[in-house]
Amino acid sequence: MHNTVSRIIHQLYDKYRGCSDGKLADYIPELTRANPDWFGISVATADGHFYSIGDAEQAFTIQSISKAFTFGMVLDDLGVNTVEKRIGVEPSGEAFNSISLDPISGRPYNPMINAGAIAATGLVRGDDLDDRFEKIRHCFSRYAGRDLDVDEEVYRSESETGFRNRAIANLLRNFEMLDDPVDEAVEVYFKQCSILVTCRDLSLMAASLANSGVNPVTGERVLKPDNVERVLSVMSTCGMYDYSGEWIFTVGLPAKSGVGGGVVGVLPGQLGVAVFSPLLDAKGNSVRGVQTFTELSRLFNLHLFNSPAVAGQAIRRVYKLSEVGSHRQRVKAHHEAIRQYGHSVTIVEMQGDFFFSAMEHFVRVQSAHTAETVTFVLDLRRVNLTDSATENVLLAVIKELNADNRQLIVIDPANILEHARYDTEIYDVLFFDDIDIALEHCEEILIQAHVEAPMIKGLVPFHEFEIFNDMTSQELSLIEGLLGMEGFPAGCKMIEQGSDPESIYLLTKGSVSIIYNSSNNSDDQLHQRIAAFGPGVSFGELAVVDCSKRTADVWADEDVTCYTLSLDNLRMLESSSSAIHAKIIRNILIINIDRLRRTNQELGSLKS
Amino acid sequence: MHNTVSRIIHQLYDKYRGCSDGKLADYIPELTRANPDWFGISVATADGHFYSIGDAEQAFTIQSISKAFTFGMVLDDLGVNTVEKRIGVEPSGEAFNSISLDPISGRPYNPMINAGAIAATGLVRGDDLDDRFEKIRHCFSRYAGRDLDVDEEVYRSESETGFRNRAIANLLRNFEMLDDPVDEAVEVYFKQCSILVTCRDLSLMAASLANSGVNPVTGERVLKPDNVERVLSVMSTCGMYDYSGEWIFTVGLPAKSGVGGGVVGVLPGQLGVAVFSPLLDAKGNSVRGVQTFTELSRLFNLHLFNSPAVAGQAIRRVYKLSEVGSHRQRVKAHHEAIRQYGHSVTIVEMQGDFFFSAMEHFVRVQSAHTAETVTFVLDLRRVNLTDSATENVLLAVIKELNADNRQLIVIDPANILEHARYDTEIYDVLFFDDIDIALEHCEEILIQAHVEAPMIKGLVPFHEFEIFNDMTSQELSLIEGLLGMEGFPAGCKMIEQGSDPESIYLLTKGSVSIIYNSSNNSDDQLHQRIAAFGPGVSFGELAVVDCSKRTADVWADEDVTCYTLSLDNLRMLESSSSAIHAKIIRNILIINIDRLRRTNQELGSLKS
Repeated sequence: MHNTVSRIIHQLYDKYRGCSDGKLADYIPELTRANPDWFGISVATADGHFYSIGDAEQAFTIQSISKAFTFGMVLDDLGVNTVEKRIGVEPSGEAFNSISLDPISGRPYNPMINAGAIAATGLVRGDDLDDRFEKIRHCFSRYAGRDLDVDEEVYRSESETGFRNRAIANLLRNFEMLDDPVDEAVEVYFKQCSILVTCRDLSLMAASLANSGVNPVTGERVLKPDNVERVLSVMSTCGMYDYSGEWIFTVGLPAKSGVGGGVVGVLPGQLGVAVFSPLLDAKGNSVRGVQTFTELSRLFNLHLFNSPAVAGQAIRRVYKLSEVGSHRQRVKAHHEAIRQYGHSVTIVEMQGDFFFSAMEHFVRVQSAHTAETVTFVLDLRRVNLTDSATENVLLAVIKELNADNRQLIVIDPANILEHARYDTEIYDVLFFDDIDIALEHCEEILIQAHVEAPMIKGLVPFHEFEIFNDMTSQELSLIEGLLGMEGFPAGCKMIEQGSDPESIYLLTKGSVSIIYNSSNNSDDQLHQRIAAFGPGVSFGELAVVDCSKRTADVWADEDVTCYTLSLDNLRMLESSSSAIHAKIIRNILIINIDRLRRTNQELGSLKS
Repeated sequence: MHNTVSRIIHQLYDKYRGCSDGKLADYIPELTRANPDWFGISVATADGHFYSIGDAEQAFTIQSISKAFTFGMVLDDLGVNTVEKRIGVEPSGEAFNSISLDPISGRPYNPMINAGAIAATGLVRGDDLDDRFEKIRHCFSRYAGRDLDVDEEVYRSESETGFRNRAIANLLRNFEMLDDPVDEAVEVYFKQCSILVTCRDLSLMAASLANSGVNPVTGERVLKPDNVERVLSVMSTCGMYDYSGEWIFTVGLPAKSGVGGGVVGVLPGQLGVAVFSPLLDAKGNSVRGVQTFTELSRLFNLHLFNSPAVAGQAIRRVYKLSEVGSHRQRVKAHHEAIRQYGHSVTIVEMQGDFFFSAMEHFVRVQSAHTAETVTFVLDLRRVNLTDSATENVLLAVIKELNADNRQLIVIDPANILEHARYDTEIYDVLFFDDIDIALEHCEEILIQAHVEAPMIKGLVPFHEFEIFNDMTSQELSLIEGLLGMEGFPAGCKMIEQGSDPESIYLLTKGSVSIIYNSSNNSDDQLHQRIAAFGPGVSFGELAVVDCSKRTADVWADEDVTCYTLSLDNLRMLESSSSAIHAKIIRNILIINIDRLRRTNQELGSLKS
């Protein structure tokens, strides 16, 4: 994607491209064959957009960066308690290849030094070397969103020269921090370090960690959220060897580097970043990697602890049913009841992720509105994610509301919540997919409670329609002679958008929806329910009055019966009974003044 | 505040209240006089709400928790480069009172061990002990939002027994990490540790760090944002002594504890938490403190690296001027031009904080809409905070847009941006306080570009008003005889909300605003501009037609001239010239059908 952000990253790339400080890793011969000019930067956002520059597609071996991902894998497979028995999480203050274990526990200090990493690889279960390695390769491939290969030459080279790591493995075995066969574990470890990745792969792997363990491109979960926290924790305290404290202080991102020249960093919730350049500094970190990360962090202010106050954004809107109602057009008395009593329904629209701080803001709004509210509507349509801790708080909220004879309605079309936890036998809670249907439901409860004889039985007589208000009985009988009657079965399209108007419809039985069709840029048809009508309401007057095309489809939601007043008869009235015609037009105007005022009020609530 | 969240924290308090593990600090006699039952919890949100339980108002000495705040203070006063010459930031792996310095640099390892803390206190400049201490006390008081005292007895006790710290100070002096007089520095340090705070104070101090260095209650900046990052970095790697790695792994919050029994933790952007209970474990951390934090973090999922994907929330709404316009009602041809060409104006409404990730999302939206957009409107009304890094990117965006003959308009009533940086001599960028006025501005540019003879000069003749469409010349001359004419000076209130309607107004010159007044719960009057009208537009018809009270005030924005059609004359027409009356009513209906359709369309855009 080419935009201002990519151009700024490109400037950074140009700035450090010419730097040739540092030297290639030489502890195995294969690594010295890297091209010292290689330099790639890739930034992947937590929603899967890439900014990749330079040699971002050049393959190289993952080396120590693998430690973070294997540690995550065994945490997912075996649980933290099992893993913690064998690997600590304290920074060691010692070199990455140190042959020392914690004197009291016998554990390696942490999974980012070789001893801890070999212990972690040793926890990957399998029938043999190939089986165990395949599990690791498969896991890394899911992070990268593609099938990863191994550099067999590097692997052989590592295996042929890896005596120090074999010593570490045997020491681990001595303290029972590694199971037999020791040789197999250390071979799997060498092979894991020889997996080939590109800078782009690494940025996506890091973005998967930034995105709470879900690969943002494939949508696959690659690590449990709890273990994402744990992996990032050890990356933040131990990921950059002896430079870890300074790195967090300066760059402020959990990170891991490898002697292949790669460095990955994670800004949780936001970005995965990878830099590749094989020239290393004395501490074993990529020189251009450290330079690029330091400047990128400064340039975009990416420091972990530069955290925006996120929770204030969590509440998108709070409104009352009296201010914004459903799309259903009702008879006047019903609208008035909703306007009068709708303050007892409070709708809270959330957005983003629904974690503790967002929940705490919801609870605060909820408790501020509790006195006048009977029903809270929690609109989660724009929420991406929640966690079980937050759902526990929500269940406590529901219990407290119910104890007070209050109800919660949740709009959750994407099943963000775990619905099975909300037993409707126990809790007074309702789930809806659609906010409009939920608001309709709330409106009907208000109408039931506050309007006398609220439900309309049988056919509404034509003279009760507002469009015929103020007529004399003589005028009414004249009108009666001009009305037709039409029936439409449920599911039938009664009016087609774009067609010429023929009649005004007086809905005497049943219910209809008005669907507006539009096409967006990519030619998809969008169908939006813009209104709904029930018995006693007229519709289709406007196109008849100004002779324009129908502006939307009308569908029968159930079996429908309508009186119809045709355009021809309306014209006939205009010439032969202008007083009746004038009254009809005036009534239509008054009906629409009401609609316009209501719509303006809603618009005011939504715009403010 | 009593709500579900406070009740859950209360349950936690009840759970650990009975625990009497651990023992009182005894390295100075004064501390053994604490009541072992004391137990307080306080949570302060980044926007300044408190949940305080138990002995949250009990005063105790701050002790080592002071190290974090003094380190921040000298960073603000002297800058990171000066401070880093004397204090490192790497975890030491050694005890907090260890008498050892980095063998190469001679620096103490980090500011959270005594050596580093004394070096930091030594960097506080002043005339004498009192002057230097007062600076620290004043600084801490600003964090706590109240004037803090010192426990003189504890201070004397620390001073009388503090030989080990005097040894450390002299060693620091030996390596030139501390200036003379050595004794004074160490006395200031003892006194700093003896400052009295409550649990509630500490939670607010932590919340000030969570809120990027601004005390959320007083609104005062207490630490620069860059230094907030640095203080939290060292708290996260070294804040809990030998338990720091495990703490970040398990609790996941930058934290600091003191032997007085306090522990503070910070969830950046969200919360400050403090627990007070003087019974300590073997590592010197409060037992109930560790228990409460561990469970609170698990219960509410507060781990630092459990980060919601924040940036997706940053964009509140993207829309085109063709979909949602200003409140100004215009003549039909003008509305049509806006509908037809308004897709060239793209409005992007942001919310929350405007940091890199939010900016990156804006840039992505901007580049996706660039092809058809001439003017971008960046609506920052709901943005709280930005940083200079993000403004650098914004300037780059403006440069690129301008190079392409595109313009940026920014809505920034709260001066979130540093307006001086946007030199309008260099950049084509406009700032508005009000979105409606900005949209009007964009509309007028479109009308200028796309409507022939767009501007109305002089008085609009009465027969050009839509309300008199389709009249014969005979009818028009009859109407002319019935019209009055009224003038109103700029700034005058022409119509009062709630009054009885007398006339329909045909605005022939000037401009008016329709202001809707409402009172909210706290009896404040809210004044919302719901519409604006210019020459050629009629208003005030609706109340005349349905004989309801005026629903809003009308104010003359400039000198205004109107034709008026009085209610009496309208009634006279109804009885004596019903054809004219019917046409007028029909025209009003058609005008309002247009308004209703436009309003419905806007409502659809805003609701979806």
